[in-house]
This record gives sequence, C-alpha cells and structure tokens, in this order.
Amino acid sequence: MVNIAILGFGVVGSGTAEVLTQNLSLIEERIHKKLNIKYILDLRDFPESPFGHLVTHDFHQILEDPEVSIVAEMMGGSHPAYDFSLACLRAGKSVVTSNKEVVATFGDELLAEAKANGVRYLFEASVGGGIPILRPLTNDLSANTILSIDGILNGTTNYILTQMRTANTDFAVALKSAQEKGYAEANPSADIEGVDAARKITILAALSYGTLLDPNKIYTEGITKITTADMEVARLLGYAIKLIGHCEKQGDKVLAMVSPRLVPLSNPLHTIDDVFNGILVETDMLGTTLFYGKGAGKLPTASAVVGDIIDIAKNPKNDPAAPLFKKNGKMADLRNYVCRNLLVLANAEDANLTEVAEHTELIDGKLAIITKPISEAVCAELCDTLGGNLISKIRVL
Amino acid sequence: MVNIAILGFGVVGSGTAEVLTQNLSLIEERIHKKLNIKYILDLRDFPESPFGHLVTHDFHQILEDPEVSIVAEMMGGSHPAYDFSLACLRAGKSVVTSNKEVVATFGDELLAEAKANGVRYLFEASVGGGIPILRPLTNDLSANTILSIDGILNGTTNYILTQMRTANTDFAVALKSAQEKGYAEANPSADIEGVDAARKITILAALSYGTLLDPNKIYTEGITKITTADMEVARLLGYAIKLIGHCEKQGDKVLAMVSPRLVPLSNPLHTIDDVFNGILVETDMLGTTLFYGKGAGKLPTASAVVGDIIDIAKNPKNDPAAPLFKKNGKMADLRNYVCRNLLVLANAEDANLTEVAEHTELIDGKLAIITKPISEAVCAELCDTLGGNLISKIRVL
Repeated sequence: MVNIAILGFGVVGSGTAEVLTQNLSLIEERIHKKLNIKYILDLRDFPESPFGHLVTHDFHQILEDPEVSIVAEMMGGSHPAYDFSLACLRAGKSVVTSNKEVVATFGDELLAEAKANGVRYLFEASVGGGIPILRPLTNDLSANTILSIDGILNGTTNYILTQMRTANTDFAVALKSAQEKGYAEANPSADIEGVDAARKITILAALSYGTLLDPNKIYTEGITKITTADMEVARLLGYAIKLIGHCEKQGDKVLAMVSPRLVPLSNPLHTIDDVFNGILVETDMLGTTLFYGKGAGKLPTASAVVGDIIDIAKNPKNDPAAPLFKKNGKMADLRNYVCRNLLVLANAEDANLTEVAEHTELIDGKLAIITKPISEAVCAELCDTLGGNLISKIRVL
Repeated sequence: MVNIAILGFGVVGSGTAEVLTQNLSLIEERIHKKLNIKYILDLRDFPESPFGHLVTHDFHQILEDPEVSIVAEMMGGSHPAYDFSLACLRAGKSVVTSNKEVVATFGDELLAEAKANGVRYLFEASVGGGIPILRPLTNDLSANTILSIDGILNGTTNYILTQMRTANTDFAVALKSAQEKGYAEANPSADIEGVDAARKITILAALSYGTLLDPNKIYTEGITKITTADMEVARLLGYAIKLIGHCEKQGDKVLAMVSPRLVPLSNPLHTIDDVFNGILVETDMLGTTLFYGKGAGKLPTASAVVGDIIDIAKNPKNDPAAPLFKKNGKMADLRNYVCRNLLVLANAEDANLTEVAEHTELIDGKLAIITKPISEAVCAELCDTLGGNLISKIRVL
C-alpha cells in the first residue's frame, strides 16, 4: 500500500483526489500496487466532500507519519509550499507538485534535496497542465540536443488573444470574458503580464540545459499592449499573435524570454487557440516536435499530478540520472537575440527602412514592415530613431 | 560500460550509430554511464563506413557475447528479426526495435519473454518514428482511461494526399513524386494500401487496451481510390482527406481500423501535412492531446531507438508494470461503428436521403452529402441502394 498526502484542497488538489478515486482500479491494475489517500492538508474543512474525513490542519501529522511516502503539493504560492516540500523530502518522502512558482524558484534546491535523501521530486503538472512534456523532454528526447523551445504556455492569455482575433474585441473586453468563464482570476496580472509563462519557460530551459535562471530576471513582456489594430495588421500579413515563451542555448549561456509574437501560418503554433497550450521543441536529431493539449483545468492538471504519483509508486527510489538544476548559470544577453519584427508606422513617408525591411505593406494608411532578422540591439536603436512615428513593434516567431 | 549490438545497418541502423556517436558525450553525461557499440550485424560489409570494423555476419557472435546487454533490432521484416529478438531476450539481453511488423505480430510473445527473463523489450520507434508517443501513452497518461486514438501514422500517404490537395495532382503523379523524393519505396503497397498504418494502430490499441489484434484482420482501406475530385469536394466542404488509424474500446471489445477520412478544420490533424505524423489521444481526464513530429526518416527514427537504449541503460531490469499484450482478445464488430460519411452522387434527383443527410451541397452538378452519424451497417445498406449513382464514399472524422 502506497500512502499519499495531498497538500492543498483547491482546484487541482480536489481534482487529484477525484482522478485517484475514479480511475483507482485501472491504475492499481496497471502498476500492481495499492494506492491510498491518507491525508488532505487544508486550512478549511470540507464536511460535504467525500474526502472530508481525510482533512487535517496539521502539517506535522503528515510529516511525522512514516506510512506516507508520497506528498502531492498543490497549495500554490512560494510559502509555505516550498518549506513543506523541503521538509517532506528531508523526511524521506517523495514530492510531486503542480506549483510552477516553487519549481522555477527553488527547483535546484528541491531536486538536490530529493537526490540527497534518495527520493524523488517530480513536477510534470507545472508546465503545460496535463500535456506530457517534461518527462518526454527528459526521457524520450534524451538522445537529442535541445536547440530551442517555443511554447504557448498560458491558457488565459491564449484565450484572450483568440477572442481579440476572432471576435474582434479589444483587450479589456476579452479579459472580462475570460474572467466570466473562469479562465482568468480576479487579479489576472500573473497571466497577462507574462509572469506565469516566464516561470514555465524557466523550467523548460532548466530541464533542457541544466541552468535554472531567475524567472524574475528573464525578459518578460505581457499582452496588455496588444490592440485590435495589431491583430488586424497581423491577420492581413498572414500571422496570428500569440504569447510565446522561448528558450535556446547560446554557447555556454542560456536565453529565456516571454513576449507576444507574430506566428506565421506555417508554424504549428499558429492554429492553437483558446485555452489550449502547445509546446514546440526543436532538436538536432528529431527536428520539430509539438506537444498539444489542455494546459490548465482541474482534471487535466490532476492527470499529470497523478501520472507523477504513479511513476513514484512504481519507482520510489531516486533515479541517478534525474535532472539537477544549477543556479547562477550564465544568462545570455537579450541584445544579441536575432529575429524578425513587425513595425507599424503612422507616417509611411517619414520612414527610410529599405535596408532592414523584408516586406512592407500599406494597411489603413499605416505602413506595416516585417524586418529582416535583426538583433534586439539593432531593433531597439531603430525604434529610438522612429520615435513617435512607431505605433507598434512586435517580434515575429 | 553498456555494450550495444545493432542488427541491420540500413537507414535506421546507420542513423542509430550516428546518433550514438554524435551525441555520445551529451548522453553519457545525462545518464552517468558509458555506452559502446560493440557489433553491427549485417549481411553486407561497409569498408567505407567509420563503423565498418564493427560489422559481423554472425548473429551467434552477438548472442553468445555476455558483454552485450542491449540489442537494437532494425532489420525490418518478420524473419529473422523476430527469431533474433526472441533469442536475445532468452539470452538475457534487452531488445529495442523500430520494427512495427514484428511488434504488431509478435509483441505479446516478446514482451512476455522479456518479463520472464527480467529484461526489457521497447519499441518507441515503431510508431510515429521519432515522436514520443508510446512512452507518454503508457507512463504520462497512466492516470487516464484511453477513450480513443486517431492518428496520421504514415508519412508517405500523408505526403501523397498533401500533394493531391495542394498541387492538384492525381494519385499516380503524387505517388511518383513521393518515390522521387525517397518518401515512397519502389513497391509502395504497404504504405498506400494502409498496411503500415494498420500495424501502428494495432500497437497503439494494444498499449491502450492490453489486446493485440491481428493487424491483418482489422479493417484496412488505403488511399489508392481517392481522386482529385474527392479532394476538391472535401476542400469545398471545409475538410482535408487524411489516412487515419483509429482505435477505441467498445465494452470489452477493441476496435481498430484504417481508412481515409475527411478531417474538419476544427481538428488539429487537419493541418498536419507532408511527411509529418500526428497522433490525437482522447482520454477521460486530460481530454484531447496531440503528439506531432517527424514520423519517419533516418535521424528522427534513430532518436527514438537511442531514447529506448538510454532508458534501458538507466534501468536495465524489467519493470514489473511493463505492458503485456493479450492475443485473441475480442475484436469489435466494425458494423456497429458509428460516424458521419461523405457520399457523392452522380445524379442528385435520384436520391432521397433527407433522413440521413446532415448537410447537402451541389458541387459541379454532383450531390455531396454529409450524413448524420450512422453505423457502418446502415451506411453499407444505403450504399447498396444507391448502386451506380454513388461516386464516392469517405468516412468523416
């Protein structure tokens, strides 16, 4: 019998209990072991829930129970989620989590602690919700050098951008619609400012390159400045606008960034709409692979949490080849990053951009330019020169 | 040191040697073990190849060398590939393969033999080339009931169908182009008749439901009868035509089939073109997930073979939860399978199909009908009634 404790009985926590109950016989048959939820830690009581009798308010009851071998942390926030995870690992319990904030901030320490204690720390649900991405990236693609990753990593912003494009609504209206549907929180800033996506691309970069960057220091640009006019220009030029997390290795340095991007029709991310996520991995041997599915939601995310629980139930001991993250690795200078850019100018005549322009089009009296691939440094200088004449500047993927 | 033998130095075999050489230091760093190709079995000699000195013509040299712990079988065909695999497993060597014919026909026996000998039999490369699909399906989605799978599983036919749609060429011309590009073999029947896709969907069904059907007995319809007129009708109605492998569970029975299907724009498989593969998995908890990438080719397929080799180098012992296939499981009766169908009629006036029609459109003087969801039995009866008036009948996904 494998005894499990759930920390946090919110959306994902209750979903995890539901998946573990509904598919229990199927899972037990697959792994030839019995699973049991022994505790649910929450500040609240849930007298109406079928799991109500498992609720405890005392973390130490879980920590000191030697029967509990797997702890599923789904509390959200850094503290006490990190502290509880650390304590559990030190007590010889494996930990699984959906908490991207903890993984992106303390992943190095928690993975090392798991290794030191011969147990496991898994976090498949922290990126892409239920989409299998972290385990495929580390296991299935282990014969490959990861060249780069581009991902639609946040369902809320993808829903908003899809609304803006298909219903022609502006950002505020689309955000309100997302909130009404429960896709965006009352305080949506972590989503719309790109903070959530920044944590996720930080985790993907760490698994790909071993270096855990500071998610607060990577270049992060949200979607709040995208206008319906931008959407229309993009559409006419054959692009969709998506919030993209990007990472790549540059020599011994790692680049990670989040920003809105024009995604061309030829890119499989172009057609990924609404709350769906898609993660495009580029490797040396396999080429391009896409992982697509529900990046959030109760049962999809719980599916990944329970997948990790099953993995540990099967293999409880630390894998000697488990990833380790190094902090203080070198972060690449964004100024050297090269890509195409969309520039929209109010006054077409003022501009003399023949040298950098790859494509220009007059749209609604404004000049839309797709630049050749240029560095961020060159592009910034160019934008300075254009001054007030520049209405919009969006990177192209 | 983990010693590996490669059986068959064709496209995938030489690709495997290339991946293992090019990314060797990266791989060894990831798994903290040394890997070494000790033998390459082939009837031919390769004096020009950097691996030429490893070639042996004697299988028993490999079989009897206790230092060889992993054998990668990439010979193709059933015999002696199956016989050599069986002998290696019995000798306590783990086996990995890209050979879908062997897995779809003898997978039950070889998995049982691996278990009996405490070693492993892995075949990630047998479906979807380099795309991670089999391991995610069995590991990452292990908290889920697999409801159904729909896949573009054969790159050759997908290339031909893409050519027919985008270049408006007929089947024969598109096939010739595929042969010229090296995407189709001189004898293309296994691809264009759907046999290759049938083997792959049989493997996916076996991993999902534990039942290994006979790939020669499942309903298999290729793409040779698809005309440019069909393509045009599909396009005008908002569909692309794709060769789809489908499986699902019906009670205690398993259904697997291969046939051309009209794929609507809303389905992520719609936009998967050329030699790319895409596998759409529908589960109870996660919902829809798509795995997309290069389903064939030297290095992509080798990437999956080496992924399996790495997995075994890390975990050489048989996993007690490894899948086992049961043969002689119950195959569902295709006649009960329900889907929409496209029917194209020469003479619009003759037909009285108001009861089954969901959508009708007059195209080029012909009547195109999308039926409501109807069973295969009902559809077959209907087609009989229509007789010579029926020009085309293609299932809708």
